[in-house]
Amino acid sequence: MGVNSHRVEDFSSHNNGSLKISTEIPMPPTEAMEIHHVCLPPKKTTFQKLKHRLSEIFFPDDPLYRFKNQTWCKKLVLGLHFLFPIFQWGSEYNLSLFRSDIISGLTIASLAIPQGISYAKLANLPPIVGLYSSFVPPLVYSVLGSSKHLAVGPVSIASLVMGTMLSESVSPVEEPILYLKLAFTATFFAGLFQASLGFLRLGFVIDFLSKATLVGFMAGAAIIVSLQQLKGLLGIVHFTTKMQFIPVMTSVFEHRKEWSWQTIVMGFSFLLFLLTTRHISMKKPKLFWVSAAAPLTSVILSTLIVFCIKSKAHGISTIGHLQKGLNPPSANMLYFNGQYLALAIKTGIITGILSLTEGIAVGRTFASLKNYQVDGNKEMMAIGVMNMAGSCTSCYVTTGSFSRSAVNYNAGAQTAVSNIVLATAVLVTLLFLMPLFYYTPNVILAAIIITAVIGLIDYPAALKLWKVDKLDFLACACSFFGVLFISVPLGLAIAVGVSVFKILLHVTRPNTLVLGNIPRTQIYQSLNRYRETERVPSFLILAIESPIYFANSTYLQERILRWVREEEEWIKANHESILKCIIIDMTAVTAIDTSGIDMLCEMRKMMEKRSYQLVLVNPVGSVMEKLHQSKILESFGMNAFYLTVGEAVGDISASWKPQP
Amino acid sequence: MGVNSHRVEDFSSHNNGSLKISTEIPMPPTEAMEIHHVCLPPKKTTFQKLKHRLSEIFFPDDPLYRFKNQTWCKKLVLGLHFLFPIFQWGSEYNLSLFRSDIISGLTIASLAIPQGISYAKLANLPPIVGLYSSFVPPLVYSVLGSSKHLAVGPVSIASLVMGTMLSESVSPVEEPILYLKLAFTATFFAGLFQASLGFLRLGFVIDFLSKATLVGFMAGAAIIVSLQQLKGLLGIVHFTTKMQFIPVMTSVFEHRKEWSWQTIVMGFSFLLFLLTTRHISMKKPKLFWVSAAAPLTSVILSTLIVFCIKSKAHGISTIGHLQKGLNPPSANMLYFNGQYLALAIKTGIITGILSLTEGIAVGRTFASLKNYQVDGNKEMMAIGVMNMAGSCTSCYVTTGSFSRSAVNYNAGAQTAVSNIVLATAVLVTLLFLMPLFYYTPNVILAAIIITAVIGLIDYPAALKLWKVDKLDFLACACSFFGVLFISVPLGLAIAVGVSVFKILLHVTRPNTLVLGNIPRTQIYQSLNRYRETERVPSFLILAIESPIYFANSTYLQERILRWVREEEEWIKANHESILKCIIIDMTAVTAIDTSGIDMLCEMRKMMEKRSYQLVLVNPVGSVMEKLHQSKILESFGMNAFYLTVGEAVGDISASWKPQP
Repeated sequence: MGVNSHRVEDFSSHNNGSLKISTEIPMPPTEAMEIHHVCLPPKKTTFQKLKHRLSEIFFPDDPLYRFKNQTWCKKLVLGLHFLFPIFQWGSEYNLSLFRSDIISGLTIASLAIPQGISYAKLANLPPIVGLYSSFVPPLVYSVLGSSKHLAVGPVSIASLVMGTMLSESVSPVEEPILYLKLAFTATFFAGLFQASLGFLRLGFVIDFLSKATLVGFMAGAAIIVSLQQLKGLLGIVHFTTKMQFIPVMTSVFEHRKEWSWQTIVMGFSFLLFLLTTRHISMKKPKLFWVSAAAPLTSVILSTLIVFCIKSKAHGISTIGHLQKGLNPPSANMLYFNGQYLALAIKTGIITGILSLTEGIAVGRTFASLKNYQVDGNKEMMAIGVMNMAGSCTSCYVTTGSFSRSAVNYNAGAQTAVSNIVLATAVLVTLLFLMPLFYYTPNVILAAIIITAVIGLIDYPAALKLWKVDKLDFLACACSFFGVLFISVPLGLAIAVGVSVFKILLHVTRPNTLVLGNIPRTQIYQSLNRYRETERVPSFLILAIESPIYFANSTYLQERILRWVREEEEWIKANHESILKCIIIDMTAVTAIDTSGIDMLCEMRKMMEKRSYQLVLVNPVGSVMEKLHQSKILESFGMNAFYLTVGEAVGDISASWKPQP
Repeated sequence: MGVNSHRVEDFSSHNNGSLKISTEIPMPPTEAMEIHHVCLPPKKTTFQKLKHRLSEIFFPDDPLYRFKNQTWCKKLVLGLHFLFPIFQWGSEYNLSLFRSDIISGLTIASLAIPQGISYAKLANLPPIVGLYSSFVPPLVYSVLGSSKHLAVGPVSIASLVMGTMLSESVSPVEEPILYLKLAFTATFFAGLFQASLGFLRLGFVIDFLSKATLVGFMAGAAIIVSLQQLKGLLGIVHFTTKMQFIPVMTSVFEHRKEWSWQTIVMGFSFLLFLLTTRHISMKKPKLFWVSAAAPLTSVILSTLIVFCIKSKAHGISTIGHLQKGLNPPSANMLYFNGQYLALAIKTGIITGILSLTEGIAVGRTFASLKNYQVDGNKEMMAIGVMNMAGSCTSCYVTTGSFSRSAVNYNAGAQTAVSNIVLATAVLVTLLFLMPLFYYTPNVILAAIIITAVIGLIDYPAALKLWKVDKLDFLACACSFFGVLFISVPLGLAIAVGVSVFKILLHVTRPNTLVLGNIPRTQIYQSLNRYRETERVPSFLILAIESPIYFANSTYLQERILRWVREEEEWIKANHESILKCIIIDMTAVTAIDTSGIDMLCEMRKMMEKRSYQLVLVNPVGSVMEKLHQSKILESFGMNAFYLTVGEAVGDISASWKPQP
């Protein structure tokens, strides 16, 4: 055998990166060939490994790289920019940017004011809290936030969830003060949770709400919200406080006598108007202002109509008196002990996660459209601080809203100054315009909410999930039906469970492939997928497509034995040359644990008993290291590791040939 | 460029396994080379995929392969063998096998009788239930079980857990009948659960109790059990019913006045004797009978001593009167409604899982020593049926015991007949020998239990876990301290949580490597690990070592962008040739979901904006299929997929050269 096969000289000497090439001149494959060592990764202490691991977990984006090799003074300035992005873009701000920002700011204000009032009602809160929440948080965000296009304020999903969760325990009608206290407390905990996630760099937690889960969740929530609006749209007075599909539908038809035809006519007319404007803006993105201006137009029009026919319009309920003035402080209303504290914390965490997910997703979407980057963890801190500040100034949970940010983007917003303009517009409203809302009918708010949430139902995305990934579709369906028929937190929990189960399933039942050779090459690929591949006589070449863990080591052992058994049967049936060597391609075995190592040992012994040679090809660094640490490299021996399948086949089959 | 690069001709035509080789004669690498197509896997319908998937999940070992191509008559016989393994080995049974089995059966009987009585006390049950449980279950198992060496009966862990969980709600002293009912009911549910797992082929559930978890759990349980035995060993009468470390130790020292010196002297003498015999047998496995015979010897000796000095031995409590006779039926004692049903089901499921884990692990261990295979799912059904039958005949949870099976194996057991011999010996004891136990002191049972469980503490295994895998050690430590200080079910739950978290962590933060070329080869390996590798100018070659899922798509995107940024900085600093192409080696990306696909799309757009070419190498079948289904293959274009990194580098760098 004209081949150097001293590939593994001394494992214990831990020769970093040693790779010896035995023959200098490359020769045609399978005749005689270079054989390369499989080596251990560079040695690291446990502390170095831990440090590397932790920095990959918590600082994958190396957030402080700008600070490297800078003077102290420069570092201070960069630190200020890092903490308060306003200093970064503020110094370059100019009049032309301001012109863009003022237009977009006023546009989103015209949308934010009616939506604020509507969403507050969705959370069972007084309408004015919705306006308060559109004033302070945008100001805070404009100082701390790093997205240029995020329009901050109350959003439908978080409002709905807060409304549902709190009103299950406390009635907003019977105990309005307690309910308000709990809402502010939940907002505080939402902010605290968000800021902590960002500060502790645990932002990846929100990644566990996969897109599939969110598609289902949003569609379910949109349907629930729309059904809830039937109360306002039909003019029903006594309505269920439950959120599930069945009680809501029952309630709608049980109270048929309360239906008010004036309300219905007005509601459906404006709904039609709003949906038409939405349709126009969707068809022609340039006409974004049509749908952006529609809510305010509807509010003004409907208020005028009700004002004119007020003597005849008994059936139409209106918002009524709203107090003038700025946000009152509410730090004294936070509720840190007592029986409802757990409820407030739970509500805070769930609305916190949901609003964070929406805010970060929206921020990233528009950042990628304009090719700048948004740092997820920093954004979380900004949104968290904004909510904590909000909870002390009579605001409830806010985040970046998808619909308003899209309008903001289309209206040409350039910086977070558009949020300041929005806040100023809300300030003027709060100080001077509140009496104008006296005659605004509640039915118009219902129509605005329905129009806003209907965009959350994303059929094409669900259809694509079905086409591309059935298990993703299952997660989507679970969250949809869970939210619709069970409850919001449970629906979400089930969907996250399905998503995690999917990951575990892939690990528990990994693919194993039989490889064959593409003639005249060193390429080995799946026999089943590549028709040009050919079986290599006397070899069974398997590729394992997953880490080997406790959860799959038994399965893999059984599966490999079954491949061997099937190969033996096939050889018997086809009178082929007998099986001598089993090669396992470990390229995709990206990790191993102690159960996996035991499995490999066990497998080696079994193969030895059947007098087959077992060869491992291209184990990755961490696997090699663990095999070394558990001292089983020696039991595998010198000839059990190769760098490529080609070299393994060449060298082993050469060793079978009679010596010249 | 003398290279055929029409690798991806028409994705939508879905040409199965098409792989065209452009140049017929292999040429030296990097000059001009063959380029191979990346192709889609063979087309399958959703139904075929589902079928394949389900068969891999539930029938990975293809359990019915023996039935293929057989006559009906043969199939019937095979079916009988499949359901009742006794028919399989029974037909070949002979006298020489029987001689081995009778010796091993009597040996384990001498161990099983004192252990049975002891373990029943551990479960707070009357001692005789332990003997009943060593009679019926071994008989059932010998008909249904497929292991040749499993010795069936009560085991310490399951007894402990049942005792703990039930006595937290019902006192075995104050309500003995209710307690007994609950124990039988829990046994029934344990059996039902075990049999269902086997029948539904969900056996992989027990794989989630990883070896690391079990090492910690067993050590924790062994310490708890030993501490509990201080009651018997010190002769304390009033003892806590709690199981955690702190209350037990408090109880031991609070009742110092109850300590009885006679009991202590006798207890520690026999404990020393038992531990010495155990030590001898461990040093010399041939002397296994020394430790196997020691418990019965201790029982006989201590009974004789107490009998002789009975007038003076007031401090030594004895077993007392035991009823003669066979197992009474207990089907009428099963408890299927009422407030404790949930407790019984919960206890049943947890003891069921634990006893199943022990039974299957023991069965597999000895099967691999003798090179035969045990079908996990079939064993589960056997153990489940055995427990259901047991619950109707006054038995509590039983399984294959590790210590007794080891003795059985060493004593030369050949078939399950040794279990029949064991049952016969217990039968004789139950019918005739019960009065002999009247003077057996309880302290001897405590000593037997301590000796048995001390073997469960596996320091070397824990040390190895620490050396090889820190996260496995963490799971081990969690289950150890959880069991010791919190509670058995919670400790187990935490440990399983840690194990699953470990899998998720690997998926959430996968490795990405920068690859370089080994000169004069087509091998590309980690630059960091293989020193001989060299950077390829103008290329950045990355390998992703994990599936791309929702849980890591954001991370991977950030991480890849950081690699690109660092590469740009490095090039700037070293005045190297500029970066033109980014190659991602997808070999280890064994799956992708919709979030991952979106990430790849996004990445392609970003790279395009920076005018880098993005190339994917060797995507596996399922990834390729999903890229096709989501219709993004077209957006990647013809030149974005290669089968090997070598071909990608060769072809792309050739295309940059000016045309001749």
